[in-house]
Amino acid sequence: MALRSRQLSATEHVRNVLDRLAADTCNAVIALDAERALAAAAERDAELARGDWRGPLHGVAVGVKDLIDVVGLPTRAGSDVLADAPPATADAPVVARLREAGALIVAKLHTHEFAYGPTGDVAATGPARNPHDPSRITGGSSSGSAAAVGAGHLPLALGTDTGASVRTPAALCGVVGLKPAFGVLPTDGSFPLSESLDHIGVLAPDVHAASVAWDVLSRADGTGGGIQAPGVNGVRVGLLTDEYWRALDPAITKAVEAAAARLQARGAQLQEVSTPMIDELAATYPVIVGAEAYATHAQWLAERPEDYQPITRERLLPFADQPARAYVDAMRTRRRLTAAFRAAVADLDVLLLPTTRLRATPIGAAEVEVGGIDVAVRPQLLALTLPFNLTGWPAASVPGEVADGGLPAGVQIVGVRLEERGVLRVAGALARD
Amino acid sequence: MALRSRQLSATEHVRNVLDRLAADTCNAVIALDAERALAAAAERDAELARGDWRGPLHGVAVGVKDLIDVVGLPTRAGSDVLADAPPATADAPVVARLREAGALIVAKLHTHEFAYGPTGDVAATGPARNPHDPSRITGGSSSGSAAAVGAGHLPLALGTDTGASVRTPAALCGVVGLKPAFGVLPTDGSFPLSESLDHIGVLAPDVHAASVAWDVLSRADGTGGGIQAPGVNGVRVGLLTDEYWRALDPAITKAVEAAAARLQARGAQLQEVSTPMIDELAATYPVIVGAEAYATHAQWLAERPEDYQPITRERLLPFADQPARAYVDAMRTRRRLTAAFRAAVADLDVLLLPTTRLRATPIGAAEVEVGGIDVAVRPQLLALTLPFNLTGWPAASVPGEVADGGLPAGVQIVGVRLEERGVLRVAGALARD
Repeated sequence: MALRSRQLSATEHVRNVLDRLAADTCNAVIALDAERALAAAAERDAELARGDWRGPLHGVAVGVKDLIDVVGLPTRAGSDVLADAPPATADAPVVARLREAGALIVAKLHTHEFAYGPTGDVAATGPARNPHDPSRITGGSSSGSAAAVGAGHLPLALGTDTGASVRTPAALCGVVGLKPAFGVLPTDGSFPLSESLDHIGVLAPDVHAASVAWDVLSRADGTGGGIQAPGVNGVRVGLLTDEYWRALDPAITKAVEAAAARLQARGAQLQEVSTPMIDELAATYPVIVGAEAYATHAQWLAERPEDYQPITRERLLPFADQPARAYVDAMRTRRRLTAAFRAAVADLDVLLLPTTRLRATPIGAAEVEVGGIDVAVRPQLLALTLPFNLTGWPAASVPGEVADGGLPAGVQIVGVRLEERGVLRVAGALARD
Repeated sequence: MALRSRQLSATEHVRNVLDRLAADTCNAVIALDAERALAAAAERDAELARGDWRGPLHGVAVGVKDLIDVVGLPTRAGSDVLADAPPATADAPVVARLREAGALIVAKLHTHEFAYGPTGDVAATGPARNPHDPSRITGGSSSGSAAAVGAGHLPLALGTDTGASVRTPAALCGVVGLKPAFGVLPTDGSFPLSESLDHIGVLAPDVHAASVAWDVLSRADGTGGGIQAPGVNGVRVGLLTDEYWRALDPAITKAVEAAAARLQARGAQLQEVSTPMIDELAATYPVIVGAEAYATHAQWLAERPEDYQPITRERLLPFADQPARAYVDAMRTRRRLTAAFRAAVADLDVLLLPTTRLRATPIGAAEVEVGGIDVAVRPQLLALTLPFNLTGWPAASVPGEVADGGLPAGVQIVGVRLEERGVLRVAGALARD
């Protein structure tokens, strides 16, 4: 808006963003593309001066997770394995769509190594740091995207999400993250982690910005929000009752309860629902992602194991011995239990649940104490998001109300009968008045 | 036609068919469903008497490969493993569609054990025998379907096709076999061999009968043939020039040449095309089918190995040691090379090629001599059909002209830009005048 009304030129906006990114203390930035961004900003300004407006992303600075190709820059995927990667020869289609809409690509952003982890503290360039507490993780794997948006550096960033990787860092950094339905956005030009689970997604400071980005990326005409009912009156919201879905951090539970109360106050119908198949469904995830990731990395693991971060290598190597049967069985179970899950929630429009079981944990901590018990961090940051990579349903994380005023807590909205715009509409209803 | 005009009642037709099947010498029949078929025939006759005609399958006898569920009958899949299988509690959807259209299910038909073989001579009930020479194989795995139709017992049969299993027995028994595009017909209620390759298909004495069945199964309105141009004028027909696609039996090569000449005479445009990726694409087939089939059978192989035919067991067991990586890599290669294959033939409407490299071989022969060289039978009966299970394109086998008057030779038509009805239209143009 400020850009269109020329209160701020694209050039000024990009200069501000570049200055902020250059001074970033979250370790969110892998590379700046200052010269080209400024040149493009000048073009966008010239267009605007002659009345040519490309739409709401005209002149808007965007960051891209360093797992996604941006022409002219290497894609290093957070790994020394790709330290010498040549510059990408083309933009990934999602990047190209943003550029066509007038967006200015300003930076490549930090990623957990090869996107294989939900913490963001394992990468060739060191850990990303949470903008709310630099001693804590950002979540991952879209660590730099969440941190840069959460720090206020950027109004929009692209990420990828294979089990958590847009929604979990969004939750931990206090921003909005959208993972669309599987297959809706092309993943070409993005380094694969697990092709049957990989999604491209967006991170933004608020639901409105995420919606604008979604319209551009999905090539909608941008009127979807206008012609749909704007509220949530009558929307059927499922609350999952199984132990599996419970957060460990009471602040997260309270944030979800507050979100439910808010939706109900705005006319949504809350309905409790049980999904007894969730444990067995979730158990297919590590088998599937392990097999697909190992197949990608097998040759490099054999030829240059020392170029991996040790924890990444140690997580991948056991899959060398995984039999094909385990993978085929897991894919069959996944299909069968996705259908069962769908049937269990079939009459709901969305599900409302925590994004993660924990808030941002200390950098490097594999375990944390919760109520006197040591729990492994990684599973708690994956458990509530990965089911919707297995099912392929659209899901968004939005910042919840944090009663204790502490670190951000994410509230997740998953589309069952609603698609991405509907999910964002429900998310929008959660925004503070 | 004879049924609709009441020259022949459904009851008389079914009695004839049941008599023929009872006297079958091809070992094509697993079980007759005489009582229910006759009761249904009486109902169809009563409907016709009051002017209710369900369409061209009204009162037509159909046989079903014993891999596909027919309510009230066990599905034994040609194996002693399923000797005590309980009666199926529901028809497979494809069977239900035929019944709704008035068809009468008269018999379960012979299948190669678990559909895992293209010969039809490995089954708990012994080998199926070719109606043109009882010492020779039918081809498989839809052995009984092809034999019963080829022997003139039945006007229509259902089969399944994972790499060859409708088209190869159709070719060897001198009938028409159609494998539709992947995913067009539901495979529910059919015992899986390899879920990413399995197709349901039909076998019929001629292209017209196959087209009628296809309209019913695909739930088309049956007018597709009428509104399309009936001929092949201007249709672009690709002839594959790579060594891979060549038949070993000169009679088959001549049949394809005759078919090409006939299409050209009717206005089709012939065009030679090379597909250099075919060897690498085809090499993914055994990896994929092996992994998926082994996952299905692993538990039975461990618990009751003696119930398998030895050759089936020996083919499945090595896949116990197959790593997940090999399967994931094969699936990736398959996707990549399917796209390359598609690009190589993108401007063609159909491909014309042999269905098999050999005609029907002696029962039990794992190798045969061709031009003084021993060649393994199985690969020759799979090589030219399996690529279109990998790509998922529709393909039909029709009997070619056999100059030496000997065993049947199959000519295959594969849809590139054309779908099933277009493939059948081209197939129809090959029919003798």
